[in-house]
Amino acid sequence: MVIVIMDGAADRGVRALNNATPLHHARHENIDGICTLGMCGLMYTIAPGVAPGSDTAHLAILGYNPYENYCGRGPYEALGAGFDLKPGDIAFRANLATIERGKIVDRRAGRISTEEARELLKDHKTVEIDGVEFIIEHTVEHRAVVVIRDHGLCSAISDTDPHRVGVPPNRAIPFVGTKDCERTALLVNKYTAYMMDALRRSPINRERKKRGLPPANAVLLRGAGAYKPVASIKEVFGIRGACISGVALVRGVARALGMRIFMHERITGGKDTDVGFKAELAVKLLENNYDLVLLNIKMTDIYGHDGDFRGKVEAIERIDREIAPLLNHVMDYEHVLALTSDHATPVSVREHTADPVPLLVYAPSCRTDTVKHYSEVSVASGALGVLRGTDLIRVLLDQAGIGEKFGE
Amino acid sequence: MVIVIMDGAADRGVRALNNATPLHHARHENIDGICTLGMCGLMYTIAPGVAPGSDTAHLAILGYNPYENYCGRGPYEALGAGFDLKPGDIAFRANLATIERGKIVDRRAGRISTEEARELLKDHKTVEIDGVEFIIEHTVEHRAVVVIRDHGLCSAISDTDPHRVGVPPNRAIPFVGTKDCERTALLVNKYTAYMMDALRRSPINRERKKRGLPPANAVLLRGAGAYKPVASIKEVFGIRGACISGVALVRGVARALGMRIFMHERITGGKDTDVGFKAELAVKLLENNYDLVLLNIKMTDIYGHDGDFRGKVEAIERIDREIAPLLNHVMDYEHVLALTSDHATPVSVREHTADPVPLLVYAPSCRTDTVKHYSEVSVASGALGVLRGTDLIRVLLDQAGIGEKFGE
Repeated sequence: MVIVIMDGAADRGVRALNNATPLHHARHENIDGICTLGMCGLMYTIAPGVAPGSDTAHLAILGYNPYENYCGRGPYEALGAGFDLKPGDIAFRANLATIERGKIVDRRAGRISTEEARELLKDHKTVEIDGVEFIIEHTVEHRAVVVIRDHGLCSAISDTDPHRVGVPPNRAIPFVGTKDCERTALLVNKYTAYMMDALRRSPINRERKKRGLPPANAVLLRGAGAYKPVASIKEVFGIRGACISGVALVRGVARALGMRIFMHERITGGKDTDVGFKAELAVKLLENNYDLVLLNIKMTDIYGHDGDFRGKVEAIERIDREIAPLLNHVMDYEHVLALTSDHATPVSVREHTADPVPLLVYAPSCRTDTVKHYSEVSVASGALGVLRGTDLIRVLLDQAGIGEKFGE
Repeated sequence: MVIVIMDGAADRGVRALNNATPLHHARHENIDGICTLGMCGLMYTIAPGVAPGSDTAHLAILGYNPYENYCGRGPYEALGAGFDLKPGDIAFRANLATIERGKIVDRRAGRISTEEARELLKDHKTVEIDGVEFIIEHTVEHRAVVVIRDHGLCSAISDTDPHRVGVPPNRAIPFVGTKDCERTALLVNKYTAYMMDALRRSPINRERKKRGLPPANAVLLRGAGAYKPVASIKEVFGIRGACISGVALVRGVARALGMRIFMHERITGGKDTDVGFKAELAVKLLENNYDLVLLNIKMTDIYGHDGDFRGKVEAIERIDREIAPLLNHVMDYEHVLALTSDHATPVSVREHTADPVPLLVYAPSCRTDTVKHYSEVSVASGALGVLRGTDLIRVLLDQAGIGEKFGE
């Protein structure tokens, strides 16, 4: 089985273009070819009216109820960055930022290079605050994850990242009145102060200032979450899973479920990602007896956030061209395929919305419906009807002939 | 109200026939006539991706959540065979089988005749093992049910029927480590040994051997379940229910819900069943103030299991002809009708699958949609949308004007 996620590709369409959505507008003959043989439907990845994050949506699509299993963004970012979390670890997504006279002037420290950021954080990888270990793991450019490891910590604290410039970093505030929660917030605030002091004195930052570049002199934290292990996809569904994604958050979700992660420098999670390479890799993994390959393509979401209709159309057309070998392999070797999105990111909204996403399921012996063009509106008359995200994996297992039977 | 179940009629279709399904391919003008006036939809009898058994599916269609109410195949088989179960009874579906040198050579003892099997089991109807009563109730040919009646028994034990030939009967194994469960498994194993010894010495079997027929010298058990009474359909929905079915399992589900069972030699549950007779009987029951008549027609499922596309098409066409008087009666006398399947049994799979089933609902004043042909794909654009099995009964009650109102 392979699940191809065109991240945020679903849209609402644009009035000026006769309500066409990028999926409707784009030419995607290869997708339409398998669509003609397959069956379609609409999917509410979480629930009608609930706009999904990429993390909760991927959890749901992989068969895990996000309301029961989601543990916050931080842990998935950390897992996706390759960090080995232990149960109870508190993890954050972290940004290197620039502060001037106490106020944030750049939340990304001038998109500091990966090399410089790595060098900058080298001596501060592990910091002890009041006897508690803080670990910072750098990923790409200004991005990092921070993990606190101690007994009895609580993740119910606010972000130190104010998500805007012109203000100082927020103080972490405990959301509940327990001693553990108050202690965690206090530790985070002390860590923030410690890192500002340590980074201010770094030779790298002195060097950057000389070159007229904004110093990376603060670490902003967001998305606190306590890592809670869940039963693996192997334990729950009996399948070996693999994930291909350039997005740490998506890789983290897959890793949390015990799926194997495949990374490569050509898989960037950006507009420059090599879709053809990813499709080729998916074919190899299917040939290497992975039962389920999750292939996430992020760029459609980025164009949605940019409000770039044309860019989104072209991204869809490029995906259609470059995944053609994967679609052909699925048909030739009798695999099961799902093509969908994790959520809509309409160009008119530039944010995730709760609109249902189109879903196409192909299996060699599947019920073929009358939908011949893959788009948000056309799939509504498909043979699958309306599903929730958590239904998908069971539908695919059933199509693969390894599903659950209840009763006689 | 009448619910007509074309058992396993839903299909996935066949690639070689331009993806046509038997329902799409068959001519069913009478069904299409009422379809044109009624409203259609897709129904996941249990849940997307979960392949239903006939028992769990019928529970759901009658408004009972199978995850809360299903008690295993055995009790429904026993109830359907006319056995009066008491709460806590452990019931099994049983086969008379042939054993040679310790190994099963025929799981159906050469499909021993009903008369011979009845004669064979006559003296062993009730057997006491370690003070615990085992009752065997013969039904048809090689089929029987076995009930154990004692305090504190446990149904969490494995089948003694290995479901294949060339091996000895399995020993029943307790699934949980309790004393009750271990005792139940032990009793079942002793009963199996006792019956092998008793049947071996039966004059009927000596007679069969002389005639070159396989002796019925073992009783294989499967589908252990503890009977747990549930509130009747009268108590839950306030309606008097009747069931017409040639299948013990289906009758057992209906009986467990307090519905009246109607049997007749012309109702066989096989390919030779008299559909016209059943339709006539349904009319009579509607005239006799039954609020709900469940009419199950099994033969479409049998053709599905046989992988016989042509046979399934002809069965659908025969059903269409023979239920015409019932459809006309429903329209003439302003009854409410649902026509659906309990699950798909695609000819390409020969097993139950989780694909949604088509649903047609007719009521004299119902919303009429644009669906004019009853098939898996055409109903997807119908006015009912996508339902779960447990929704159906409330939809029918509402159409009949006796539904539930919530709020003012």
